[in-house]
Amino acid sequence: MDIEDVRRRLDDFTAERDWAKFHTPRNLALALVGEVGELAELLQWRTDAEVLEYARTPHGAEALADELADILTYLVELADAVGVDLGAAVHAKIDKNAAKYPVHLASGSNAKYTELRRDDGGEPGDDDG
Amino acid sequence: MDIEDVRRRLDDFTAERDWAKFHTPRNLALALVGEVGELAELLQWRTDAEVLEYARTPHGAEALADELADILTYLVELADAVGVDLGAAVHAKIDKNAAKYPVHLASGSNAKYTELRRDDGGEPGDDDG
Amino acid sequence: MDIEDVRRRLDDFTAERDWAKFHTPRNLALALVGEVGELAELLQWRTDAEVLEYARTPHGAEALADELADILTYLVELADAVGVDLGAAVHAKIDKNAAKYPVHLASGSNAKYTELRRDDGGEPGDDDG
Amino acid sequence: MDIEDVRRRLDDFTAERDWAKFHTPRNLALALVGEVGELAELLQWRTDAEVLEYARTPHGAEALADELADILTYLVELADAVGVDLGAAVHAKIDKNAAKYPVHLASGSNAKYTELRRDDGGEPGDDDG
Repeated sequence: MDIEDVRRRLDDFTAERDWAKFHTPRNLALALVGEVGELAELLQWRTDAEVLEYARTPHGAEALADELADILTYLVELADAVGVDLGAAVHAKIDKNAAKYPVHLASGSNAKYTELRRDDGGEPGDDDG
Repeated sequence: MDIEDVRRRLDDFTAERDWAKFHTPRNLALALVGEVGELAELLQWRTDAEVLEYARTPHGAEALADELADILTYLVELADAVGVDLGAAVHAKIDKNAAKYPVHLASGSNAKYTELRRDDGGEPGDDDG
Repeated sequence: MDIEDVRRRLDDFTAERDWAKFHTPRNLALALVGEVGELAELLQWRTDAEVLEYARTPHGAEALADELADILTYLVELADAVGVDLGAAVHAKIDKNAAKYPVHLASGSNAKYTELRRDDGGEPGDDDG
Repeated sequence: MDIEDVRRRLDDFTAERDWAKFHTPRNLALALVGEVGELAELLQWRTDAEVLEYARTPHGAEALADELADILTYLVELADAVGVDLGAAVHAKIDKNAAKYPVHLASGSNAKYTELRRDDGGEPGDDDG
């Protein structure tokens, strides 16, 4: 799937319904939060094993796919609204992350990059410094 | 940008750092929430006009691009973790939405689809019925 | 702690700094999302057992207390901005939930209330119907 | 409303239904995210003026009160699960914020505290440094 095709398809969808006037950055951000909330509701009382089991049922696979698609929809529309090229942005961010988390330091650790150079390697998961 | 290329690139990134063990559905969902929070922080004290002005500065454009990219990253990884084909999911969801929001009923209205057939068209924005 | 005291203290804090102009409902909602994101960052790579262990360290207890307090702060300010009496609201909502989830039906089940009367009790966690 | 009373009432509610087993920190955090999403859905297509108008209708006032109450419920339960005294935490955090945002520097500015001492006062809203 090409993100640019999705963007164009959503753009047509919006234009046909005269919805562009609602698609301000903050409206879209709040709509994105609403969809993330719906995703969280699918996960909140399930363990990871139960999520994976649920994802293998037709009903669960569709519910998860729908919520992930809704999040992507508002993300693409929000990027469009603020003039961000989402494809370029994600590749640029992976490059930045590769520099922040060099393989030899980050391997197997969930420490935040600001903690990686500490001699003791940081408390795992210490992403709150 | 092809989503499948991004997915593969993130997969390699994760594998090289031995991070797959952290990439459970719920971990990734919470990480997604963290990134949505960072995006919200860029928007919280700005009007829409100020967001657009900010998005035209080099610093603002980069900050917004980074946060949108981080959200996309965790979204792609979460879809991967639960076995959802994000590209197929978004196209299927747009098809569903096109059926739920027919152009002649939805035009110019921000009513939820469950409200669209009411004679009075629903209170605009009545997405809470 | 009385919520009304917190509300008054926050009100004074805001008035002294001439910040009331920023405290619109949507600004506060986005600020709340930002704080929920910071909380999620404390939990994202930790298991529940690791969260509890972290909560017993002085650093972790303070980090968690700070994020929970930030969320409460924006929640109280948002309730104030839209004229909701948060104390009355939470007691009214517990009453509603007690009616929706009668003890004899809900006991030990994480099914959504709309699923509780099904003969099979619903798939546990089926909060997505 | 006393937060401690709410905590005790929720505790009884949970115990009566044998739900304590679901109330792990991460479950409650995801449930909190779900409720924040529902709140965002009430605000997403409304301007601040429309939110305030909506909040003055009986239906809108109840919808907002319910969502704010749901967020408070999970916040109190999450604080309880990690052993944080929410009342003490919020007062301690207001004290910290008073030190971070002295009246003479912060007055009328939405700059982040890290920006407050810059000679030029920082770009307003520059909470992304």
